Amino acid sequence: MEYIEHLSVEKFILYLLIILVFAKAFGRLAEKIGQPSVLGELLAGVVLSAGVLALIPSTEGMVGYDVFHLLAEVGVVLLLFEIGLETRIADLIKVGPVSGLVAIVGVVLPFVLGYFSIIYFQKFAILSLEASMVGLVAIVTGATLTATSVGITARVLSDLDRLQTKEARIVLTAAIIDDVLGLIILGVVSGIVSSFGSGGAGTEGITLGSVAVITAKAFGFLAVSIVLGRIIAPKIFGFFARIDRNNLVWIMAIAFCFVYAYCSNLFSLAPIVGAFAAGLVLRETDQFKTIEDGIKPVSHFFAPIFFVMVGAAVDLSVFNPFVSENIMVISIALILFVVAVVGKYASGYVVYEKGVRKSIIGVGMIPRGEVGLIFAKIGLVHGVFKTDLFSAVTAMVILTTFIVPPLLKWMFENESKERKLAESTV
Amino acid sequence: MEYIEHLSVEKFILYLLIILVFAKAFGRLAEKIGQPSVLGELLAGVVLSAGVLALIPSTEGMVGYDVFHLLAEVGVVLLLFEIGLETRIADLIKVGPVSGLVAIVGVVLPFVLGYFSIIYFQKFAILSLEASMVGLVAIVTGATLTATSVGITARVLSDLDRLQTKEARIVLTAAIIDDVLGLIILGVVSGIVSSFGSGGAGTEGITLGSVAVITAKAFGFLAVSIVLGRIIAPKIFGFFARIDRNNLVWIMAIAFCFVYAYCSNLFSLAPIVGAFAAGLVLRETDQFKTIEDGIKPVSHFFAPIFFVMVGAAVDLSVFNPFVSENIMVISIALILFVVAVVGKYASGYVVYEKGVRKSIIGVGMIPRGEVGLIFAKIGLVHGVFKTDLFSAVTAMVILTTFIVPPLLKWMFENESKERKLAESTV
Repeated sequence: MEYIEHLSVEKFILYLLIILVFAKAFGRLAEKIGQPSVLGELLAGVVLSAGVLALIPSTEGMVGYDVFHLLAEVGVVLLLFEIGLETRIADLIKVGPVSGLVAIVGVVLPFVLGYFSIIYFQKFAILSLEASMVGLVAIVTGATLTATSVGITARVLSDLDRLQTKEARIVLTAAIIDDVLGLIILGVVSGIVSSFGSGGAGTEGITLGSVAVITAKAFGFLAVSIVLGRIIAPKIFGFFARIDRNNLVWIMAIAFCFVYAYCSNLFSLAPIVGAFAAGLVLRETDQFKTIEDGIKPVSHFFAPIFFVMVGAAVDLSVFNPFVSENIMVISIALILFVVAVVGKYASGYVVYEKGVRKSIIGVGMIPRGEVGLIFAKIGLVHGVFKTDLFSAVTAMVILTTFIVPPLLKWMFENESKERKLAESTV
Repeated sequence: MEYIEHLSVEKFILYLLIILVFAKAFGRLAEKIGQPSVLGELLAGVVLSAGVLALIPSTEGMVGYDVFHLLAEVGVVLLLFEIGLETRIADLIKVGPVSGLVAIVGVVLPFVLGYFSIIYFQKFAILSLEASMVGLVAIVTGATLTATSVGITARVLSDLDRLQTKEARIVLTAAIIDDVLGLIILGVVSGIVSSFGSGGAGTEGITLGSVAVITAKAFGFLAVSIVLGRIIAPKIFGFFARIDRNNLVWIMAIAFCFVYAYCSNLFSLAPIVGAFAAGLVLRETDQFKTIEDGIKPVSHFFAPIFFVMVGAAVDLSVFNPFVSENIMVISIALILFVVAVVGKYASGYVVYEKGVRKSIIGVGMIPRGEVGLIFAKIGLVHGVFKTDLFSAVTAMVILTTFIVPPLLKWMFENESKERKLAESTV
């Protein structure tokens, strides 16, 4: 009755229904043409978005957007939890050093390339920035290119049943380390930008020292929560398994995942990082099979909401080449996209171990997501970015997201063919 | 960043976590003392509510309340869907006529008793109403007592593993018919009340004829959707089962349930009625086992949110006898509560079949819920109710909700003992 601005129950049910049906239908179609189903779910989002069918609240400010944004986040949290549950800590530790290298190169290289792209844009008059702004714009642009969004890759690896490969482990570990490195960049960049925006004030809180502390805390939290979890979790869940007849174990596992997700947020890490860590910890309990069976349907209900909402965030109008202003945006977006791909792809080639397909690791690191957009928004809010660069960065993020599912699929297929070829010639 | 008035992801995860843990813990405690776990979940809600621990957004206007209200509704929709899936249409049709009788008596009797309670309150000066208002207040009060809220009973029957009893079927069917009867009352009462509030205008749309049409449409929708569903659903789900490897069937079943829930709302019925009908229809498909296995975890994740939110809506301050105004409210509430219990309990005794425990049916019909509160709110908004009567009705609803789980448990236990006694004496 007073619910004019609120989402009604009927509408909520209708939106959920539309998302489920479109996600499944497009997911099936994607599989039919040999693609991972997540690509279909992303496309379902594009089709449902405000610019196309406009069937769901796809952009901020629309009634119900908030609710689906929250459900989407829970979806990706549960997905990473599920993927953590399929991963052994020991396997990750083995690939720790090499993953660290991948993460560092995969952050530094795109940053440097992004930085010099802006210098180049200015030099060749593609962008016309005030001379005093160039450095700042270049730094923020570089920052938008750094953070890997692991959700897409993880889901593709799961769709293709390749989570148990060494490449998958390296990518997952590198993405976690990546998230911690992101804290350093976020700290430094927001310091620089806010000092620009507010004319000097606001930097006081952010020093290299404080960034170091945040980073150390984040690493510390991960280490402590995993070590402590490995000691405590088997006892708690052993107890739950003894007293329970049916659902206690897996529901408490979701609660455990939420505790980790919430705490990782307290330590400035993404909730998915905590969720993944929770999965790793529970993988080591005797109840992990029960947990997996229980959470899979819940995660399969929520996760498509995430991918549909990611797809729905695509603003197709940016890509319309008949609008003259778009041509510049598209050009910049394409260059940034190339930079984004090259920077991460190259990071795969620092892997020194034999028998690991470096290109798969490189491609697995390509997807960018929310964190890149957060940097772009910081730039926009503080007047460092104009809308052209902001749109270009958004387009870059979209392109990196959509290219990875078909690319990974193709690479794994190629590999199978090579193997078959090798086997048949033996 | 601009999310000041919105619920943040961390908070959302934290609230979910708290609800899950408290629901499970209190559910276990309830079982420990031999009660249905739903009673524990209701109590968990009370403990978490604004008046006690204040750990979740339990009342309208609190940030995040809307989101949890929506999730709660999906929870009860999935619960009724699940219960529909465990119920055969043929069994319901068998009990149709007797259930109709239970529903009618269970609506008329509480209405009449409620009506005369107000007349009595006025006569003995427990309430002091304007003479011209007495009839109107009596009608609205009567209306608040009519609608059975089937969620609690259904869950208790499921907790006690008694869904397959004849009593359970009669209660479920009667509750569905009850919901349709509720439309008639809602139509008539809102007509009368809004004509009062707006001084005559607003009634034009609501005539006995239009109420008849709404009711006929609702019955028609139920009949058509079940008949049509029984023809179409086996084909669709047969097709899904053929093309799918894993999750398509049960996810599409949830979509099917949402379609029914949404449409039932279009026909002025509660979404749970549609969800139950969807369950009935899918019970007749070959895939119902797959569907049940898939949706159970999802429903077990969502349903506790409903019961916790119901419990959290309890405003304990109303029951504080040290506040002098409360004494009158408590007295009225207790009388209405007795009326509510007697009216529905008696409805069980119209059952003419042998071997059916009438008292269980009567008790199963006792819980009141949202619909009663909606009537009370209509009364409040249009100035028919003052806050004293509104609080009393709310308290009555709460009491009917909390009394049923232990009462049903006790009755079934009693029955088992009687049976054992009977067996041992044979």
